[in-house]
Amino acid sequence: MYAVEVRDHIMIAHSFPSPLFGPAQGMHGATFTVDAAFFTNDIDEHGLVVDIGLAIEILAEVLSPLRYKNLDEVPEFAGKFTTTEFLSGHIFKGMADRIRGGALKDGGRVKRLRITLHESHMARGWFEAEI
Amino acid sequence: MYAVEVRDHIMIAHSFPSPLFGPAQGMHGATFTVDAAFFTNDIDEHGLVVDIGLAIEILAEVLSPLRYKNLDEVPEFAGKFTTTEFLSGHIFKGMADRIRGGALKDGGRVKRLRITLHESHMARGWFEAEI
Amino acid sequence: MYAVEVRDHIMIAHSFPSPLFGPAQGMHGATFTVDAAFFTNDIDEHGLVVDIGLAIEILAEVLSPLRYKNLDEVPEFAGKFTTTEFLSGHIFKGMADRIRGGALKDGGRVKRLRITLHESHMARGWFEAEI
Amino acid sequence: MYAVEVRDHIMIAHSFPSPLFGPAQGMHGATFTVDAAFFTNDIDEHGLVVDIGLAIEILAEVLSPLRYKNLDEVPEFAGKFTTTEFLSGHIFKGMADRIRGGALKDGGRVKRLRITLHESHMARGWFEAEI
Amino acid sequence: MYAVEVRDHIMIAHSFPSPLFGPAQGMHGATFTVDAAFFTNDIDEHGLVVDIGLAIEILAEVLSPLRYKNLDEVPEFAGKFTTTEFLSGHIFKGMADRIRGGALKDGGRVKRLRITLHESHMARGWFEAEI
Amino acid sequence: MYAVEVRDHIMIAHSFPSPLFGPAQGMHGATFTVDAAFFTNDIDEHGLVVDIGLAIEILAEVLSPLRYKNLDEVPEFAGKFTTTEFLSGHIFKGMADRIRGGALKDGGRVKRLRITLHESHMARGWFEAEI
Repeated sequence: MYAVEVRDHIMIAHSFPSPLFGPAQGMHGATFTVDAAFFTNDIDEHGLVVDIGLAIEILAEVLSPLRYKNLDEVPEFAGKFTTTEFLSGHIFKGMADRIRGGALKDGGRVKRLRITLHESHMARGWFEAEI
Repeated sequence: MYAVEVRDHIMIAHSFPSPLFGPAQGMHGATFTVDAAFFTNDIDEHGLVVDIGLAIEILAEVLSPLRYKNLDEVPEFAGKFTTTEFLSGHIFKGMADRIRGGALKDGGRVKRLRITLHESHMARGWFEAEI
Repeated sequence: MYAVEVRDHIMIAHSFPSPLFGPAQGMHGATFTVDAAFFTNDIDEHGLVVDIGLAIEILAEVLSPLRYKNLDEVPEFAGKFTTTEFLSGHIFKGMADRIRGGALKDGGRVKRLRITLHESHMARGWFEAEI
Repeated sequence: MYAVEVRDHIMIAHSFPSPLFGPAQGMHGATFTVDAAFFTNDIDEHGLVVDIGLAIEILAEVLSPLRYKNLDEVPEFAGKFTTTEFLSGHIFKGMADRIRGGALKDGGRVKRLRITLHESHMARGWFEAEI
Repeated sequence: MYAVEVRDHIMIAHSFPSPLFGPAQGMHGATFTVDAAFFTNDIDEHGLVVDIGLAIEILAEVLSPLRYKNLDEVPEFAGKFTTTEFLSGHIFKGMADRIRGGALKDGGRVKRLRITLHESHMARGWFEAEI
Repeated sequence: MYAVEVRDHIMIAHSFPSPLFGPAQGMHGATFTVDAAFFTNDIDEHGLVVDIGLAIEILAEVLSPLRYKNLDEVPEFAGKFTTTEFLSGHIFKGMADRIRGGALKDGGRVKRLRITLHESHMARGWFEAEI
């Protein structure tokens, strides 16, 4: 299987209002380095998995509502804990919707997608699934 | 599939007493950067794959008998070549035993585990399997 | 000149209430990977620049009041913009005070200190000065 | 499953003569950091996935016709776009042929191979398949 | 001294027509990850070394004539070997000219500049000087 | 000032026989990623700080007696603690001797040298001085 992966990043604030999260219960934040990997069975006649320019664009689009935001104030996340893995899944959904909707030229060729969020030099989370 | 990966490291000495290993036959050593990746089908009600604090703790526990050790003197490794890939498998077993034994709250959700050891900026090994 | 550098990290929230900061005016956050480099003219009789265990400890101490915090609510930062470079200088001051106060055994040997904060894979800031 | 991964790099020139590639249509170039990952079901009696020395050697052999080359002048690539993903597949084929041909002692144990090319700190591509 | 460093990258082709360069004499290429570090004595009233947005912009401007280019065809480089260190110096000059010309608001505060080019995971070069 | 930096690595065993070193008193080991940075005032007529091929060669030569060794058995280190910073100084001396002895063509141009040893993803040491 072929794959191409591109990188962006976001800087957000959030809180985890449950004793489970110990010192991370209060308002704090994170830089998330975000990698999006696109998997296809083959490359096209231009030697491409996907148009990397478009791939970078739709990743930026999906990240745009999160960029420099306090996630506690994003209506869509009400009642949710915006953990690294939750956000990986959320960004996956946004990307998958766009791919299914045709945002990538010839995007039907994308069989699988993985979204990885690095939260520090010590820890990261990801979500990967078929499209 | 969701995943979370955490990092630790160990500094050990060992030898590889077989001509196959050329210059690495004698006593030498390595810093192994160790990544443990936990895979689950879904995140829990707190938005978590696993409790990352517990994950870091059990990784440290499993690494503890290896930390700053001469692996040639660890009874469990008698007659074994403690290569990067062997150690990946060994640490996997220690982690899998603990997860099956309930060391991770709600650890039955962990379906898959991958242990990666980086031995230099040029080479790394890993072991990955279902739990 | 000899040097030793150790690493830690913090995850904080803050805002930059000035139009100058564009999209970063609102509450957002960052993971800062923090490197502290200690410079001496020579190594001691144990072959050390500083006791690396103590170095890690005092770095953790200085970072402790910032860890998982909303920096807008830290009284000491009232009226300040807690930029990457500002925080580098702030952490430098905390480290330098401790070193001058004797927190590092034989710390008088430390001539210079550099504190680096990586805010993303794209940008970082630091403060370096004589002690 | 066990795996071992080794690293090399190449510096090449090429052009992408199609309007699709925008600013990359003309002659430009890239440093590709190349990772080759070998997967086996088990480790051998020396604790090895593969002989890492041989693995590094056959990777260097496969990269040798590309090293410091203008890929537009490599006859084998005539009429092809030598994208990151195309090259990942090309290097995979060279490696797989050698493995099947016995270049790795006991190489029949290798079940799977992944070739990753990092083209910048922002983007990478890979090809992974059974052998 | 305070500093802030930002990152960009370019992908270029070039040749080194002298036997001294051995296998690198012919047309080949490189991805250069480019870091620009700005040094000031103090931070301004907004807590800044420089406006990081402007810093990224002028770096992109200076890199623009090199992006996706065959450096052998850039008139300004006629008769020059466009090595990593040469390019570090060249980009330094372009940045320094812009800073002296006022491209950075309040840029007179910048006392020193360092331009680093990473050519592979194994090698890099830089040029650093007063402004 | 111009600089070029190249990378190699060694895997060694050693012990630190003093209570000061706590858990690191016994025989253990490390992978040291070694960076050697050469500083000159200007580049030569080929656009070079130093001949990078020669630079890599003399670094390999200086590292050769350490590669895959138990440093406790290296006569030259008797009575010494082979810490990261001590080894940085030791490798510096070997490199500086070779440079002064003419191992680098036109090596008189090298004004300054820095040897950095990364011992883990968390800690590193270096020695830097005029030549």
